Amino acid sequence: MTAITDALRVTGPVRLADIDAASTPGFDGAKADGEAALAAGAARAAELQERLFAASTAGGAGSVLLMVQGMDTSGKGGIMRHVVGQVDPQGVRITAFKAPSEEERAHDFLWRIERELPAPGMIGVFDRSHYEDVLIHRVHGLTPADEIEGRYERIVDFERRIAERGTVLVKVMLHVSSAEQGERLLERLDRPDKHWKFNPGDIDERRHWDDYMEAYEIAIRRTASASAPWHVVPADRKWYARLAVHELLVEALERIDPQWPVADFDVAAERARLLATGVPAERA
Amino acid sequence: MTAITDALRVTGPVRLADIDAASTPGFDGAKADGEAALAAGAARAAELQERLFAASTAGGAGSVLLMVQGMDTSGKGGIMRHVVGQVDPQGVRITAFKAPSEEERAHDFLWRIERELPAPGMIGVFDRSHYEDVLIHRVHGLTPADEIEGRYERIVDFERRIAERGTVLVKVMLHVSSAEQGERLLERLDRPDKHWKFNPGDIDERRHWDDYMEAYEIAIRRTASASAPWHVVPADRKWYARLAVHELLVEALERIDPQWPVADFDVAAERARLLATGVPAERA
Repeated sequence: MTAITDALRVTGPVRLADIDAASTPGFDGAKADGEAALAAGAARAAELQERLFAASTAGGAGSVLLMVQGMDTSGKGGIMRHVVGQVDPQGVRITAFKAPSEEERAHDFLWRIERELPAPGMIGVFDRSHYEDVLIHRVHGLTPADEIEGRYERIVDFERRIAERGTVLVKVMLHVSSAEQGERLLERLDRPDKHWKFNPGDIDERRHWDDYMEAYEIAIRRTASASAPWHVVPADRKWYARLAVHELLVEALERIDPQWPVADFDVAAERARLLATGVPAERA
Repeated sequence: MTAITDALRVTGPVRLADIDAASTPGFDGAKADGEAALAAGAARAAELQERLFAASTAGGAGSVLLMVQGMDTSGKGGIMRHVVGQVDPQGVRITAFKAPSEEERAHDFLWRIERELPAPGMIGVFDRSHYEDVLIHRVHGLTPADEIEGRYERIVDFERRIAERGTVLVKVMLHVSSAEQGERLLERLDRPDKHWKFNPGDIDERRHWDDYMEAYEIAIRRTASASAPWHVVPADRKWYARLAVHELLVEALERIDPQWPVADFDVAAERARLLATGVPAERA
């Protein structure tokens, strides 16, 4: 556990209003230091990912599921580019959960989630997740209150089942302040190359800010567990949020501690067989 | 079209034995120059990918499908890491086609391919593809000769249909020499952290080298078309193959020439509405 991951792990009831979204828990440096630390960690993340994938070819069951939640503009896309993008894209599957399709709505809310769980050896990344079904649904009353109560319990059971299969779960809430969101939305409006990211509905959602914060607090309290912990990551400073999620991802991989598989063939015999096919002497 | 992409596009029957796998067609520089050119192109690739994705949110149908074929050790994985890894992983979907599952074998050979075609706005990347069904199947006689004949035609029709839907297809054969493959397999045997990549069956396949080259030549001749061109990329020098596929990918994106979508909302009105939600004055 690093100073950052230790500081971010939720261990009890959380009050988001008490967490400064511009703070950098567990990290003393400035922006340049944070960016350097992220860059310096890339090789470690890449090697652990490759080991994870390699281990799965020999029967290793380990996988990682990184779930990223946050309000609009909280920086989910930047996490994908700058943190998830550090490792071999062959070992990653990113799923963005949008408003559910008609087919998805016809099923239980966990149906579409189950279908995107990472295979052994893979890092699955969720951009939004089943938590939308207790966040937006609570804020807008899309689902009756007692049914939402039941969903918290079903999520806990579901995540425990996933963890038991060998998947290390990392749940992240990118905690941006309302002021910072306002500024970021304004930037989207002021730059034509960002217009495509803006949706008038984003402002309507913004008006429910306090309701969303309460919904997050309840969801985090009801679903944080030892095998599926929550982390509230201050996200007003993008560089800090990226470094923090990077460290959480590396920590998850280290918990699995994947090893290079031992050869299940006779290396010397295969070497002789290969040379017999004619490998030029100067190369062999 | 760049000097490299122009030089690699197959325009008639191809004889692989006549193409030096260590050559660098269309590029005069050395390794360091090639690596610098690849790094310098990253920003362009990333911007084009983002534009492609953005355009799809406004109804753009464009997508790219990069199909990478090649013998074992030809460098497919490195292409994924160093070329595909240059762009936002949210905009990419890599599919590795292994030996087909029982379910896949119960369907037509194109069934599992169709399911992985890129959605609008996405870059789909195939690590192997439906070409295995005319390569390995021809070499090992897994499918009767007349049926393989029919498959070439079906592939041409299938790919034309994909192209008509707005997908730019790029087909790449990584052309490694037998001598270089021998050396790379040897390295996998001599390094314990590479053992997991080695399979004794790789040596058995290596013994069919000439048959595979013939199968590639026939497949390329029968399926190269204006809308789904083949490129034979000399791959003994990994840095060159990566630069070449990077340029092919950029060229495909430029053919689509995706544009930032124009706002379908009233920017000034949304700006006023946003400010009314309380964006701190010093930020606005």
